[in-house]
Amino acid sequence: MAKDNFVEQIADIDTDFPQWYTDVVLKTKLVDYGPVKGTMVIRPYGYAIWENIQRELDKRFKASGHENAYFPLLIPMSFMTKEAEHVEGFAPEVAVVTHAGGEKLAEPLCVRPTSETIIGSMYSKWIQSYRDLPVKMNQWANVMRWEKTTRPFLRTSEFLWQEGHTVHATGEEAMEHTLRMLHIYGEFARSCLAMPVLTGRKTEKEKFAGAVATFGMEAMMHDGKSLQAGTTHYLGQNFAKAFDIKFLDRDGTLKYGYTTSFGVSTRLIGAIIMTHGDRRGLVLPPVVAPVQAVIVPIASKKEGVPEACRALKEKLETAGVRVALDESENSPGWKFNEWEMKGVPVRIELGPRDLEAGKCLMARRDTLEKGEYALDSAVESVQKLLGEISENMYNAAKARMDSRIVRANSLDELLAGVEGGNFVRAGWCGCRECEDKVKEFAQATARVMEDENTSDTCIVCGKKAEKTVIFARAY
Amino acid sequence: MAKDNFVEQIADIDTDFPQWYTDVVLKTKLVDYGPVKGTMVIRPYGYAIWENIQRELDKRFKASGHENAYFPLLIPMSFMTKEAEHVEGFAPEVAVVTHAGGEKLAEPLCVRPTSETIIGSMYSKWIQSYRDLPVKMNQWANVMRWEKTTRPFLRTSEFLWQEGHTVHATGEEAMEHTLRMLHIYGEFARSCLAMPVLTGRKTEKEKFAGAVATFGMEAMMHDGKSLQAGTTHYLGQNFAKAFDIKFLDRDGTLKYGYTTSFGVSTRLIGAIIMTHGDRRGLVLPPVVAPVQAVIVPIASKKEGVPEACRALKEKLETAGVRVALDESENSPGWKFNEWEMKGVPVRIELGPRDLEAGKCLMARRDTLEKGEYALDSAVESVQKLLGEISENMYNAAKARMDSRIVRANSLDELLAGVEGGNFVRAGWCGCRECEDKVKEFAQATARVMEDENTSDTCIVCGKKAEKTVIFARAY
Repeated sequence: MAKDNFVEQIADIDTDFPQWYTDVVLKTKLVDYGPVKGTMVIRPYGYAIWENIQRELDKRFKASGHENAYFPLLIPMSFMTKEAEHVEGFAPEVAVVTHAGGEKLAEPLCVRPTSETIIGSMYSKWIQSYRDLPVKMNQWANVMRWEKTTRPFLRTSEFLWQEGHTVHATGEEAMEHTLRMLHIYGEFARSCLAMPVLTGRKTEKEKFAGAVATFGMEAMMHDGKSLQAGTTHYLGQNFAKAFDIKFLDRDGTLKYGYTTSFGVSTRLIGAIIMTHGDRRGLVLPPVVAPVQAVIVPIASKKEGVPEACRALKEKLETAGVRVALDESENSPGWKFNEWEMKGVPVRIELGPRDLEAGKCLMARRDTLEKGEYALDSAVESVQKLLGEISENMYNAAKARMDSRIVRANSLDELLAGVEGGNFVRAGWCGCRECEDKVKEFAQATARVMEDENTSDTCIVCGKKAEKTVIFARAY
Repeated sequence: MAKDNFVEQIADIDTDFPQWYTDVVLKTKLVDYGPVKGTMVIRPYGYAIWENIQRELDKRFKASGHENAYFPLLIPMSFMTKEAEHVEGFAPEVAVVTHAGGEKLAEPLCVRPTSETIIGSMYSKWIQSYRDLPVKMNQWANVMRWEKTTRPFLRTSEFLWQEGHTVHATGEEAMEHTLRMLHIYGEFARSCLAMPVLTGRKTEKEKFAGAVATFGMEAMMHDGKSLQAGTTHYLGQNFAKAFDIKFLDRDGTLKYGYTTSFGVSTRLIGAIIMTHGDRRGLVLPPVVAPVQAVIVPIASKKEGVPEACRALKEKLETAGVRVALDESENSPGWKFNEWEMKGVPVRIELGPRDLEAGKCLMARRDTLEKGEYALDSAVESVQKLLGEISENMYNAAKARMDSRIVRANSLDELLAGVEGGNFVRAGWCGCRECEDKVKEFAQATARVMEDENTSDTCIVCGKKAEKTVIFARAY
C-alpha cells in the first residue's frame, strides 16, 4: 500500500525537478521503461492522453483538407542519401534492418526516423498534373531515432507522432501552408493543452535536415527550460528535386512541386506534465485528461451513498464527461492524494450529509479550491468548472511564461537569465559563430526568431542585429 | 483520361479473379506497392476504411473493458526464444535490426511480428496480486512478418492491426474471454462488414505458435476460397511461465496467470473487397465505406443545380452521412462508372428536371437498382437505403456462402468440392497425418472445427471421426 502522503511519494518539484518528473511519470502509470534501452511503454493512462490529443488534432487536420494514409516503416538506405542535408542529419540516428526472413538483405533498410523520402517517392508516382495539387496527407505512426540520452516522452528511441506531408504548385502556397499548420499547432496547444507557446522561425542551425525553413512552437517548462513542442517545415523544392516530384502545369510545362512537412509527437505529453505539474504531481488540462472528474464516496458503506455516486457517474457520462468512480477500499484521504497525483481536474466528494443536504463538494485540481454545489445541477457545475480550469491553467501558465522572458544586453546577462530559469530575448547578427558562442557560454540555444526589423545589436559581437531571438536552455 | 467503360478497366472477376483483385485495389486507389518488396502503401481511400474499422472495433474493445496502450516495436531476440513453440513459428519471418545509432548492437532486435513476448515481460512487472486481475489491454500497431509471396492487404511484410492481450486468474476465465472476443469479432464482421463468417476452433496444425488453443473466423471469398479474418488465442500458462507472470491469489499462494491474445488486421480490407466485389469493382459495406453517398449533378451548368447539390450535401453531412459531391468536369456517365468502381453504396443523381419535380434519383451499388425519391426527405431515404444495403449485402453473402458449403465423403469428393469453389464439410479422425494428406491431395486446409460429437468417419483413414471440419483452400 502506498504512503498516505504525496510528499513522500514524489521528489520535490523545486529542488529536484528531473527526479520529480521521473517519479510522476512512473507513479501515475503514464509510462514505463521498455526492455530495450531508450524505449518506453506507454501505459493506458498515458495512452489515453495521446488518444485525446489525436482526436483533437485529427479533427483539425481533416478540417484543413488533409487525408490520413499509411506509408511503410522500412525505407531503403539509398532513399535517405538522395537529399544531402537530410541524410547528414538523420543517418547517425537510424536503426537498420540488415536481415529478414532468415536471410541477409541485399540493401539495408532504415526504420523510418521521418518519412519525407519514402512519401516523396510515392508522390512522384502519383502526381502528374496541376489538377492533382495540392496533395495533403497525414500519417499517424511510430518513428525511431537512436538517441544516447533518453527520457520517457521527451526523448526515446521510438516514439509516436503524426507527420503531415503536402505538395503545392507554388512556393508561396507551400509557405502559406507551413505557416498555417504552425498556427493550427499553436491554437491546439492553447485551447486543448492550456499551454502557451512562442512560435517563430528557427535558425539555420536549428532547422530540420533538408528544410529551407523550419518553424517551431516552444513552451516553457516548470524549470524555465524550453521544450520544442512541434515544428513545421517549408521544404522548397529540395525533396521534389531529390524524388522527382513533377507536375504538368497549366502552361504546359513540367515543374517541380514545393513540399512541406510538419509534426508533433508523444513529446507533447512530456510538455503537458512539465508545464502544469505541481508538488502534488500531475495537473492535466481538461480537454485531454483521461479522467475529467472523479467521484470519491465519503462513508461509502452508508445507505444511499453508493447509489447516489453511481447515479451521478451515469449522469456525467451521459453528458459526455469522462468520469471515474473510486469504489476501492482505500480511505478517502488516500484517494484524494492518489487522484491529485494523477492530475484529475475535478474531484467530487459525496457522503451521507451531502446527500441529505442535496449537495456535493467539488475540488479543483488547478487551484485546490473546494466548493459546495447543488447535486441537482452537478453535471452543469462540472462542465462549467472544466471550462474554468482550462482557462485558468492557460492564464496561469501564460503569466508565468511572460514573467520569465527577460531581456539581455550581454552574454553575462544572458547566462544569468537562463540560469535563473528564464527565456532570454536578445539581438543576434545572424552568424553561426555567434550562435555557437551563446551555446558554449550559456548552454542556451536559439529557440525562435522573433523580429525581422530589430534595432538590437548582436549580443555576442555587437554588430547590428539581424534578428531578435529567444534564447533558452532546452529539452 | 480513363476509359468510359469499367469493363475495359478491370479484369473479369470470374475468369481472372487474382487480376481483378489487383486491378481493383490499384485503380480505386486503395493501396499501392511500396518501394521495398512486399510492402504496401495504404492510400487515403483505403486508410479511411481502416479508420472506420478501427472506430467500430475500438468501441467494442472499450465496452468489453479493454484499455489501449503502446508497447515498443523492437523486441530483444532473447525474448522470442523463451516460449519454444513461439520462436519456432515466428523466427523464420522476423526482420532484424542489427545496427543502430551508427553502431552494431550487442543483441539483435526483432521488429515485432506480434507482441506476446514484450507485453508478457511488462505484465510480469505490473501484476502482483489477484486484485490486479484481470488485465485487459489492446494495442493498435504495425507489425512485420517477412513473407515470400505477398499481395496488398492479404499478405504483406508490414501490416497494421490491433492485438489484444489479457491476463486472468483462472483458465476458465481466460477461455471464456477468448470465446467472448471471437464472438465480438463475428458480430463486428456481420454488422459492420456485412460479412458472414464461420467461427470455431483451429486444429493443432493451424493454431498460433505458442497457443493452447486458437479460434478463428473464416469468410468465403468470391472464388470460394477461405480467408482467415481474425483469430483469438487461449494461451494457457505458456507465456505466463515463459515471462514469469505471477500473482498472489486470495489464498496467499503465488500462481501463474492465464493469458489470451487476439487480433484482426488490415487484411479485413482484403476480405471486404473479395466478399462483396463484383464485375464493376468494389461494393463497400455502408458502415465502413469512406463515402456512403455520392451526389452526381446532371446538366451541372444549369441554374439551380450546383446550389441544390451543395445544399443536399450539407444536409446529409449534418445528418452524419459521409457524402461526396462530384463537381469534376467528367461526364455523368464517366462519374457513374468511377463511383461504382469505388463501391460507394448510394449514388444520387440530381438534374434540372428532378429539381423541378422535387425529386432525385438514387442508385444502389449492391443491386444496381435505381429509384425516384422526394428531395424533401432525401436524407431519410439515404439513411434508410444504407441500412437496407447493409442488410442485403449480408444476406446475399450469407446465401452465397451457405449454398457453397458442401459435404464430402471421400478425398475425391473433397477435391471436387474445393475445385468447384466450395467449403467442404467432412469428418476427421484428429491425427496430423490425415490432415496433411488432405493438404497434399486437395491443397485444402482445415479452417475451423465444428462439432465435438460427430458421428462422421474420417475422410482420409475411415476411422471414427473426432471432429467435423470445414476444409477449404485459403488465402
